[in-house]
Amino acid sequence: MPRLLATQSHVVHGYVGNKAATFPLQCLGWDVDCCNSVQFSNHTGYGLDKVFGTITRETDLKELLSGLFDNFSQDYQALLSGYLPNKNSVRCMGTYYAKFKEANPEIIWLMDPVMGDEGQLYVSEDVIPEYRKLALSPKQLVDIITPNQFELEILYGEKIKTKEHLKKALEKLHRTIPVIIVTSCDCKMFDDQEFIYCVASMEGKTPIVYRVPFIDSYFTGVGDLFSALLLDRVYKILSNPTTTLEFEDQVNNVLNVIQKVLKITRSYTSEKTKAKMGSASEMKEMELRIVESRDLYETINVHQTDYIYARL
Amino acid sequence: MPRLLATQSHVVHGYVGNKAATFPLQCLGWDVDCCNSVQFSNHTGYGLDKVFGTITRETDLKELLSGLFDNFSQDYQALLSGYLPNKNSVRCMGTYYAKFKEANPEIIWLMDPVMGDEGQLYVSEDVIPEYRKLALSPKQLVDIITPNQFELEILYGEKIKTKEHLKKALEKLHRTIPVIIVTSCDCKMFDDQEFIYCVASMEGKTPIVYRVPFIDSYFTGVGDLFSALLLDRVYKILSNPTTTLEFEDQVNNVLNVIQKVLKITRSYTSEKTKAKMGSASEMKEMELRIVESRDLYETINVHQTDYIYARL
Repeated sequence: MPRLLATQSHVVHGYVGNKAATFPLQCLGWDVDCCNSVQFSNHTGYGLDKVFGTITRETDLKELLSGLFDNFSQDYQALLSGYLPNKNSVRCMGTYYAKFKEANPEIIWLMDPVMGDEGQLYVSEDVIPEYRKLALSPKQLVDIITPNQFELEILYGEKIKTKEHLKKALEKLHRTIPVIIVTSCDCKMFDDQEFIYCVASMEGKTPIVYRVPFIDSYFTGVGDLFSALLLDRVYKILSNPTTTLEFEDQVNNVLNVIQKVLKITRSYTSEKTKAKMGSASEMKEMELRIVESRDLYETINVHQTDYIYARL
Repeated sequence: MPRLLATQSHVVHGYVGNKAATFPLQCLGWDVDCCNSVQFSNHTGYGLDKVFGTITRETDLKELLSGLFDNFSQDYQALLSGYLPNKNSVRCMGTYYAKFKEANPEIIWLMDPVMGDEGQLYVSEDVIPEYRKLALSPKQLVDIITPNQFELEILYGEKIKTKEHLKKALEKLHRTIPVIIVTSCDCKMFDDQEFIYCVASMEGKTPIVYRVPFIDSYFTGVGDLFSALLLDRVYKILSNPTTTLEFEDQVNNVLNVIQKVLKITRSYTSEKTKAKMGSASEMKEMELRIVESRDLYETINVHQTDYIYARL
């Protein structure tokens, strides 16, 4: 049974970070070691006067990761990193993940460089150079990244406005990262704003554009679920040289699962709820129905929609 | 879908505390809100020079629980409490759980008064009065407790050497607690040391003695898994007045699941490993196979062994 180490946030209530990733991965047969970068009562979009809970201090995170490295450095097949609250925690995760990778070069690292969305940073600015260092390391530390367009632009260092420009950015980042999935691209680059565009790019291959229907609600944790499922699918391709699984189908499959989870989540909410950030009751209603969706994570026998839209 | 709040330890690697309880409960259709009383790299029986990780400070635990109470006091059907590292954390959990109970008297609280085993305390002595206060509260705060014999004796205040004495202890504790499961009784009270004896007692009914085969290994997290499954079964009885489920069968069912999980765990270890406390490699090998056992948690259609041995 494969085992992964996941370092990201923990919320007691609701499903973001490790709470969104762990159960689906366990259902898929992964042993998931969850290293929590924060412990909050709920995600920070509830708009409450204050955030209840604490950030794992850097010294504590360091101790945890060093304990894991000392005792389990050969035990992981994959590493997952997501939301980390500040520069020190990104650096600490990066240092230890690089050590794990050095001790076992076969290990696959998916890094979700969580920094912001739609032009807004939601971490402090000094996090940026830390993620850039990891993504652009000539040691090729990271195997997969899952930025949104804003985060891609930060890693690349320029705003991206055209498809040609996007291609160039991907080419540059592929010098150090084999697999790049841009989870949501600026729709102005494409034809229709009723959809979300996702671009999957494997080093040396033509990037593929996926187009999925836009559900007009503010869901949280979708990116964390996406990264977890993607890591599972990519691992299954990379760990089995004789596989007939195709990368593009696996990404399509993940998008199918996500769409179904969102539909299930939506089916529990009242018609009119759209979930505004900052409305605690609406945020609560819109928490992903991760447990209710438990039969979906493996969609081998489920009807799949083809979301492949174009080659870039 | 029922939801519970579980306050107990978190380990990154392995399966004790919330890591042992959460996945099985999610498989059974529970939304599990995990409030972590500690975050350690692994359980403390590995015998390493030091424990890697940290205890959630009392102020942080208080903040978390108060955030949860403010926003979700009506959202839980059950409360679970397990390992808490010190007097302050037990008191803090107790205070807030009592508030949840007051806000919603239908809520079911299972308290595992984790203090020690076989004559040895593994918490500091000042934890004892905190658990006694909660267990013996005339407000009848706690609905279910799952002590081992040593912990039962602590709550009762006397050593228990005979079956008659055990009966008396149960009667006394039933004044404030409706359901008591003594997860392992001193086998000298019974006939045969090749077995483990478990006593399940519901207020006003004759206690039932279960006898399960003893597997000669040191497993950790078994009690945490037991409490989680038991809470699920008792909830299903208490929340459905027309149910035909019987308490004694449900306990038997939980014991069946546990035995199967232990057998699956054992099937992955080498023949000669018995797992001594303090041997890191053996402890690692003996971590419960919680994910591998995922088809077992609901054993409705699986052959059940009858472990009922006697009435007390």
